[in-house]
Amino acid sequence: MSAPPDPTIAKPEDPADRPRIALAGLLRSHEPPIPEALARLVRGLGPVDAWTAIVHGTAPSDVMDLVAPRLEGLGPAELNHRAADDLRRARAAGAELLGPDDPDWPADTFAGLDALVPYDGCRTAAAPLALYRRGGRWPTDAGRAVSVVGSRSATPYGQRIATELAAGLVAEGITVVSGAAFGVDVAAHRGALYAGDQPGAPQPAGGVTVAVLACGIDRSYPVAHRALLDAAAACGSVVSEYPPGAVPARHRFLVRNRLIAALGTATVVVEAGRRSGSLNTATSAGSLGRQVLAVPGPVGSAMSVGCHDLIRDRRAELVTGAEDVIGLVGPLVPAEPVHRPGDRATDGLDLVTARVHDALPARGGAPVDEVAAEAGLPMPDVLGALAELEMRDLAIRAGGGWRRSGGSTSPARRA
Amino acid sequence: MSAPPDPTIAKPEDPADRPRIALAGLLRSHEPPIPEALARLVRGLGPVDAWTAIVHGTAPSDVMDLVAPRLEGLGPAELNHRAADDLRRARAAGAELLGPDDPDWPADTFAGLDALVPYDGCRTAAAPLALYRRGGRWPTDAGRAVSVVGSRSATPYGQRIATELAAGLVAEGITVVSGAAFGVDVAAHRGALYAGDQPGAPQPAGGVTVAVLACGIDRSYPVAHRALLDAAAACGSVVSEYPPGAVPARHRFLVRNRLIAALGTATVVVEAGRRSGSLNTATSAGSLGRQVLAVPGPVGSAMSVGCHDLIRDRRAELVTGAEDVIGLVGPLVPAEPVHRPGDRATDGLDLVTARVHDALPARGGAPVDEVAAEAGLPMPDVLGALAELEMRDLAIRAGGGWRRSGGSTSPARRA
Repeated sequence: MSAPPDPTIAKPEDPADRPRIALAGLLRSHEPPIPEALARLVRGLGPVDAWTAIVHGTAPSDVMDLVAPRLEGLGPAELNHRAADDLRRARAAGAELLGPDDPDWPADTFAGLDALVPYDGCRTAAAPLALYRRGGRWPTDAGRAVSVVGSRSATPYGQRIATELAAGLVAEGITVVSGAAFGVDVAAHRGALYAGDQPGAPQPAGGVTVAVLACGIDRSYPVAHRALLDAAAACGSVVSEYPPGAVPARHRFLVRNRLIAALGTATVVVEAGRRSGSLNTATSAGSLGRQVLAVPGPVGSAMSVGCHDLIRDRRAELVTGAEDVIGLVGPLVPAEPVHRPGDRATDGLDLVTARVHDALPARGGAPVDEVAAEAGLPMPDVLGALAELEMRDLAIRAGGGWRRSGGSTSPARRA
Repeated sequence: MSAPPDPTIAKPEDPADRPRIALAGLLRSHEPPIPEALARLVRGLGPVDAWTAIVHGTAPSDVMDLVAPRLEGLGPAELNHRAADDLRRARAAGAELLGPDDPDWPADTFAGLDALVPYDGCRTAAAPLALYRRGGRWPTDAGRAVSVVGSRSATPYGQRIATELAAGLVAEGITVVSGAAFGVDVAAHRGALYAGDQPGAPQPAGGVTVAVLACGIDRSYPVAHRALLDAAAACGSVVSEYPPGAVPARHRFLVRNRLIAALGTATVVVEAGRRSGSLNTATSAGSLGRQVLAVPGPVGSAMSVGCHDLIRDRRAELVTGAEDVIGLVGPLVPAEPVHRPGDRATDGLDLVTARVHDALPARGGAPVDEVAAEAGLPMPDVLGALAELEMRDLAIRAGGGWRRSGGSTSPARRA
């Protein structure tokens, strides 16, 4: 990497590519996660000016110290060439570079990563500056995605659960997010991709699945999953915050896990040994305020110990399948929310929930049994609806009972 | 039963038997559970005077109305003969009648039953007036007992778990309580009785197990479990609140379940279908303030659905074996605990955990990475050890890091 870039690929830049070249340069300027000083510079100046300041050495000295190991004494032209080269290599692999200015950058989804205090003793929480992405369908702030994670040495039981779970989720229009490892990851992607297909069908016809890599977007790791990753890119996406060519080093899996945790509305641990890396993903998800769910398994199975620990310690809710998960995260909110004038926060509620909302007083607080009587609905339905309304900020506990709340203007946007 | 008692067995009473004859008469005077008016009379007058008032028709009219269906127009002599006959039949079966005046009547254990509000829509909560008991070892107020319950159509998995669980509990001196049904009940008793034995050993050499019957103490139901019940009586006890000869009617199983729930410090549900009667035992245990525990199993097993429901709804703690249960209920309190000078809270830690404990500062708070560096251990090991130390009150989060905590004087005694 200390040799100058190959002049045959150092073609003049397309000015329209400048923002992406800046992002590509920034992604290569520090090993993720991005330290706060560098992230702050990019947020403050925007990627183009931040990158320019870095390549010309005019960025604040703390930032220059941070990026020095990767600049390797290269001048501005060489750095820009190298960044443009990253972009070309990504494009050759079918990937684009997506940044915070892109319309489908899930800003709310990643916002928590910047706010998150360091966890596991390392500062691995910062939001990505950009992501290389193959394929166009992935979690948006408005949509619903569930991360399905677990051991790479999953048992046949765990693999079956992961496949069935993912198939059940995509059947409800929920995007599946995982890594690309053996075991639970690949079983989840297969379930999402081939849900409803006949066995051996040549083309996937299932749902949207997203594979988050711990290596360059141009690499298939493990190699055995090349076809699977191609299918994921065709039906969903494959993403990476690492520059093209980056190797899947061990620490990158742990750092990558925070993205899997962030991209899911909930994270489900399907099988995990006591020290599985997927428990790290679960911890991140919990720290990000995402729901953490775990699937139980036979007592005595080492691959279920991590799940049982999570449930026992109340760090995860027990789920037995897609139905439980959907019950907790709610069904898919339509992918393209159209905001018409007159849209109300209660639009999109199911009939029972809407009826309970109607039955709530605007002031004071009505006990649950009064609400049930007013709505003419059985108590369990009312309790479920109140939980849903509370989650949507449409109901609030007050005076020993419940009343209506203002509600967010966009019920679809609850990260 | 409308015929007069057989004069050949209506021998003159032994005056020393009068209290037991009164209890036997009272047990036959109303189907359990005992209504509050009758229970109040017995508490107020004592069993002998209460029984005398009933047989002479001088008890309050609400009590007389309650017992009328069972008095069947019999006079005092006939009623006393019938009660004495019950006692003889029980003794012939090897059982004694145990009442609240007996020194090992677990008064505290049953107290909650009287205080309990009606549940399941029926008033089935009152404490038993007395119990027929074969065998002398059973839960005392001072001891520890765990009720192990579950489906009578348990899978081989559930039966194995029940057996291992019971064996692990009696190995710690904890009494096991269950019914006498096929499935989980019998597997639990076998585990308790034959813990540590060689397979096929002729004599049980294990722990104390208690079988609570839903029929007369002189009956073996199911018949296949006669030898098992004999073994339970030899090593623990078999108990019933029903008069000798009572048949195991369906409602008696549900009524009996409250006694199983009450006799255990905790109730563990090993396997339960969605509508298993053992869920009723779990509900009773919860209402009585006992710990409710459930064992997870493979998702998709109908016999684990009830357990998963309990855990998911936070009505039970997840446990994976005897170790978890003992961690929650505490080990058997030894009759005479020996505290050797020199015992320390850190005794019994594994090497890694002890090393992390040594690496913690006594004041302030060290970040995890500093602790890891100090201990010379990888981060995941340190995190696992810190969780363990925190659980034992040997480490505490402080100042953005961790420091040592005082620790309980006896790490084994965390209830």
